[in-house]
Amino acid sequence: MAVNLTAPRAQDLLPVAGVRLGVAEAGIRKKDRKDLLVVELAAESRVAGVFTKNRYCAAPVIVCREHLAGESRIRALVVNTGIANAGTGATGLADARATCAAVARALGVEARAVLPFSTGVIMEHLPVDRLVAGIPAAVANLREDAWADAAAAIMTTDTVPKAVSRQVVIDGVKITVTGIAKGAGMIQPNMATMLGFVATDAAVGHDTLQDMVRFVADRSFNAVTVDGDTSTNDSFVLVATGRAGNPRIVGEGTAEFTRLAECVLEVAQILSQAIVRDGEGATKFMTLVVEGGATREECLRVGKSIAHSPLVKTAFFASDPNLGRILCAVGNAGIADLDPARVTLHLGDTLVAEKGGRAAAYTEEQGKAVMAPAEITVRVGLGRGVESATVWTCDFSYDYVKINADYRS
Amino acid sequence: MAVNLTAPRAQDLLPVAGVRLGVAEAGIRKKDRKDLLVVELAAESRVAGVFTKNRYCAAPVIVCREHLAGESRIRALVVNTGIANAGTGATGLADARATCAAVARALGVEARAVLPFSTGVIMEHLPVDRLVAGIPAAVANLREDAWADAAAAIMTTDTVPKAVSRQVVIDGVKITVTGIAKGAGMIQPNMATMLGFVATDAAVGHDTLQDMVRFVADRSFNAVTVDGDTSTNDSFVLVATGRAGNPRIVGEGTAEFTRLAECVLEVAQILSQAIVRDGEGATKFMTLVVEGGATREECLRVGKSIAHSPLVKTAFFASDPNLGRILCAVGNAGIADLDPARVTLHLGDTLVAEKGGRAAAYTEEQGKAVMAPAEITVRVGLGRGVESATVWTCDFSYDYVKINADYRS
Repeated sequence: MAVNLTAPRAQDLLPVAGVRLGVAEAGIRKKDRKDLLVVELAAESRVAGVFTKNRYCAAPVIVCREHLAGESRIRALVVNTGIANAGTGATGLADARATCAAVARALGVEARAVLPFSTGVIMEHLPVDRLVAGIPAAVANLREDAWADAAAAIMTTDTVPKAVSRQVVIDGVKITVTGIAKGAGMIQPNMATMLGFVATDAAVGHDTLQDMVRFVADRSFNAVTVDGDTSTNDSFVLVATGRAGNPRIVGEGTAEFTRLAECVLEVAQILSQAIVRDGEGATKFMTLVVEGGATREECLRVGKSIAHSPLVKTAFFASDPNLGRILCAVGNAGIADLDPARVTLHLGDTLVAEKGGRAAAYTEEQGKAVMAPAEITVRVGLGRGVESATVWTCDFSYDYVKINADYRS
Repeated sequence: MAVNLTAPRAQDLLPVAGVRLGVAEAGIRKKDRKDLLVVELAAESRVAGVFTKNRYCAAPVIVCREHLAGESRIRALVVNTGIANAGTGATGLADARATCAAVARALGVEARAVLPFSTGVIMEHLPVDRLVAGIPAAVANLREDAWADAAAAIMTTDTVPKAVSRQVVIDGVKITVTGIAKGAGMIQPNMATMLGFVATDAAVGHDTLQDMVRFVADRSFNAVTVDGDTSTNDSFVLVATGRAGNPRIVGEGTAEFTRLAECVLEVAQILSQAIVRDGEGATKFMTLVVEGGATREECLRVGKSIAHSPLVKTAFFASDPNLGRILCAVGNAGIADLDPARVTLHLGDTLVAEKGGRAAAYTEEQGKAVMAPAEITVRVGLGRGVESATVWTCDFSYDYVKINADYRS
């Protein structure tokens, strides 16, 4: 049961000029479900991506990195669900390349202009014949207004499709940003995978788009966690078709970069937070704000340390204001010279800890009142500087264990 | 329900000459239970310790570090359960010092010759008056053969007391090593704490003992994990009374050092593994052997990455040979240049993965057979060098969530 998350309405998802999407049933792992998505991109599109840091990265991730290297001109994305094509050795790599080649043939582009993505079970081989056989149907379905279909087609065991659109005016030109994402919930008792695709019709320079995807990923997909397991297939791709007609945005320092990045970031944050809201067994959505750090990186580490503590997560499940567990996680974040006497901790707006101990005015009743709702904000002040970071996570419930201990089926 | 763990028999615990132990009921947090332990050490004893790296370390940890600095001559340990005296600011520090002073008065030694230890609830203040009032009774009870009582008195919500003895002959002299430990199970729904005390009658030089405690801790207490939360109070102390009459052991490279260190290590491993066997909700005991590393540290990191993955732990709970989750955890250990093509994975004696994918001869039935018992060994070969490390952990069950989501009582 997702936390405050409903499916997007198809009419709320805005087409992005230069992006067409088509889905099909390829029978990858299960019958009678859309499990194949092809995305066609206009000729002048720029594409940038960030990928999993897991050393056991999936074959499609390896191929994506190859195809994005140098002066790449990406013309299509192809996504299958059901099989992750990870832990599949040399055969998996050949399967990913064969998939790209088949999409390239169908669209009349080069194979290296295609980026492949897979999500699903690890250590099983892709039924590449069935996948290739499904491509013509997906291509025949290509439409600009198929974002809702696309969001549904990339789901594995997500309970709610994840998609959102926003618009922003830059240099007098209305720019559209639409994105879809799946998973990270790992609700299927196998390693699932996070995929995020965001497209805009803005014109953006190649290097600038790469800067933007990193900036956005660090503040959205890289700032959410369900259970701390970085999957083998994580991929976040940002497409800029240039069809809006704005002057091409070049350089990270410009006002235009900031306006577009903020709009893309809003879309990416909504999508990444949707992944947490749909996290396995989630009953609570927590926002962890860490402030007063010497660096953004150390703030992020403190946030992740809290978010990954099973003791903190079970306390949130129980709506228990168990302050000691949070302080313990702060102390475990690996900041060697952290001074607990300068750390402050707020639950919601209530100061609960300072000077190395419990705040004098704090009462357990105040803490319980903050912990009762489904959405909870925790603020940590490190007392070391002016940097900050926010991490979003969910709680740890019986259903998490149930979902992941059920045998693979 | 602990995994293959039974209480030690009092007659199996060997006295260590120069060490006397006394317990008492101080009423720290609950009535009618032994919650105070005083350990008196002979005048020539050497003591070395390692303590939590958590920056929110407890007041007694701070005092222990102070009292062990320089040419310390420690004459007593004092341990209370019920309240951890962590997250208690300046008051907590004063309480820990008052405790040392009271023990010092009772034994006729200096306050800085006393090491204090606390375990229990975080962010509550120690009832120092009741603790001090209990000290005379504990001192009146001091006996050499009270190790079983001591092991029971330091329990919080452990289900089984943890104690063991071993002997070794060094330079023709029979040396005894006896140790006790508690917790890390965090079975009480508050941060609990790991405490380990090991004593030997061997004569060991001061610096050499410090080398030995680090060597042993790295291969025992630092190599076990239940849920990845390093507590605020973790302490492991090694006492050498020198009463056995062996020539004093000086220098890490000597044969005598190695013989004693191996005996102490055996005691420490049994105690630390007992903590895992008694881990919260544990139904399985896993030994993770990581070999072929470039450094011992990277092997340990791979072992901990597997041991901390909630997806791996729930799969073990389900007796599910979910190989993808283990490979994913290997890939997440932060070894930037790890080559998955060289990694091998064994479940028990069965090769299950190699060359970046599933081993050709492996069948799911083989995997299920290995996963069925309560004790499971996983071997990872990194293919990078000759170093190795072993990590011990338990699974993640419904009861883990139940235990930690129950409200503090």
